[in-house]
Amino acid sequence: MSNSVTAQHISVLGLGAMGAALAQALLAGGHQLTVWNRTPSRAEALVSQGAQVAATSAEALAVADLVILCLLDDASVREHLEPAAAALRGRTVINLTTATPEQARSLGRWAAEHEVALMDGGIMAVPSMIGGPAAFVLYSGAAAEFERFHGVLELFGRAEFVGEDFGAAAMYDLAILGGMYSMFAGFQQGAKMVRTTGGTAAHLATLMAPFLQAMTTMFAQYAPGIDDPESYVPEQDADFTAGAIGTIDKAAVESGTATELFGVLLRTLPGI
Amino acid sequence: MSNSVTAQHISVLGLGAMGAALAQALLAGGHQLTVWNRTPSRAEALVSQGAQVAATSAEALAVADLVILCLLDDASVREHLEPAAAALRGRTVINLTTATPEQARSLGRWAAEHEVALMDGGIMAVPSMIGGPAAFVLYSGAAAEFERFHGVLELFGRAEFVGEDFGAAAMYDLAILGGMYSMFAGFQQGAKMVRTTGGTAAHLATLMAPFLQAMTTMFAQYAPGIDDPESYVPEQDADFTAGAIGTIDKAAVESGTATELFGVLLRTLPGI
Repeated sequence: MSNSVTAQHISVLGLGAMGAALAQALLAGGHQLTVWNRTPSRAEALVSQGAQVAATSAEALAVADLVILCLLDDASVREHLEPAAAALRGRTVINLTTATPEQARSLGRWAAEHEVALMDGGIMAVPSMIGGPAAFVLYSGAAAEFERFHGVLELFGRAEFVGEDFGAAAMYDLAILGGMYSMFAGFQQGAKMVRTTGGTAAHLATLMAPFLQAMTTMFAQYAPGIDDPESYVPEQDADFTAGAIGTIDKAAVESGTATELFGVLLRTLPGI
Repeated sequence: MSNSVTAQHISVLGLGAMGAALAQALLAGGHQLTVWNRTPSRAEALVSQGAQVAATSAEALAVADLVILCLLDDASVREHLEPAAAALRGRTVINLTTATPEQARSLGRWAAEHEVALMDGGIMAVPSMIGGPAAFVLYSGAAAEFERFHGVLELFGRAEFVGEDFGAAAMYDLAILGGMYSMFAGFQQGAKMVRTTGGTAAHLATLMAPFLQAMTTMFAQYAPGIDDPESYVPEQDADFTAGAIGTIDKAAVESGTATELFGVLLRTLPGI
């Protein structure tokens, strides 16, 4: 086995900030690249580095071993794929357009019907991170295609296959973002609390960030309680967790900054 | 200035798991140590290393330059301090017993009335972490005492002064724990979502932990929006955040695992 990646003919449809970053990574990886964008001028920088521009999305879809979509939304994906079903038969499509799990599953059914090998992807990075060490991308759907194109996918960032359910990548993506927003909500609420003592959100940020970084290791400890609740013995009993959250909520209320947040935690979290 | 810490006579009241760990750190730091615990047998290991045992809490309070309390609750603190007010005049007391901000402020008023120099502390560590690199302890109240005993306090872990409001340490402590539980709630909810695709909480843990670690750097970016909302320009507008959380909530609902969590985020977070 060689670590070198065989050069492939790859088409990228959609050259927004993210699509352009993906295309750039493919060029840097030495692949033959065809791009298409509704506004062709967005392709100029890529063309100067050797990319070809397709006049129509159908042309871009027809020439490539691998098609990567990074379009506006699910409707745009349908608009370009459906008329090209015959040309796509036997080809591989990776859809990195933001989609819900249900949209990804529906596209998966369409792909199966038309014998198109499909993967759905969720990009856990902003465009400037693509190709760098912190980027990772979740994939779900056709496991064989993940193996086959793994070398290509690693050009974008760490590639992680999360399941054959076409909706899995989108679900993992949204689950991770939900965790992020929950953490942000906790910071925002905490900042309001410490400000009532003369403290600042800026000071809290310096203290909360390293503490929560360390506490992310608890996810792996809590996971068995969610995956296999029957045989799980909690680290701390539900009463302890409920008591701790109750004290936090009481302090939030006394500080005059309480939202519904800790009340929800109290109703959902104990027993974890 | 020397980095060496002048040995002090220190008393520790309360030898539960945390109090015993604090006492151990003080002995390791070369201080003269007197301990008191309701159940004297808990002191044996410390005595074998040179600690003295006081027969009564009053005796422990009377002999020390610095008194450290790590008792059951606020009522226990009052029970031992109030009868000893005269003996404590001019001495320093650091209360590391878990307290709410209001309890800490009330004790602060009592201390001022009796000319006792008081600091309240919040320990951000489990007992086994005391004295190690990951432990930190928040202090509030008498700033001069924080400077005076800084060398002692660093024996427990990184010592951080968060304000002269006696309730500040407890408020920062609860704010940080509130952030932690909010993050855990996000993980728990996300794990339930990915399990509907055939995924596991264990797999999600490996993906969400490094992502959230990286995202804690956003706290410092959001802080100006909370400390100085007038002059703050949000990184992403409220509509973007609301749209993202709305998509996450929709996926949670479609997966049949939704709780109230994302609805609360939608009502509180946009605009951060």
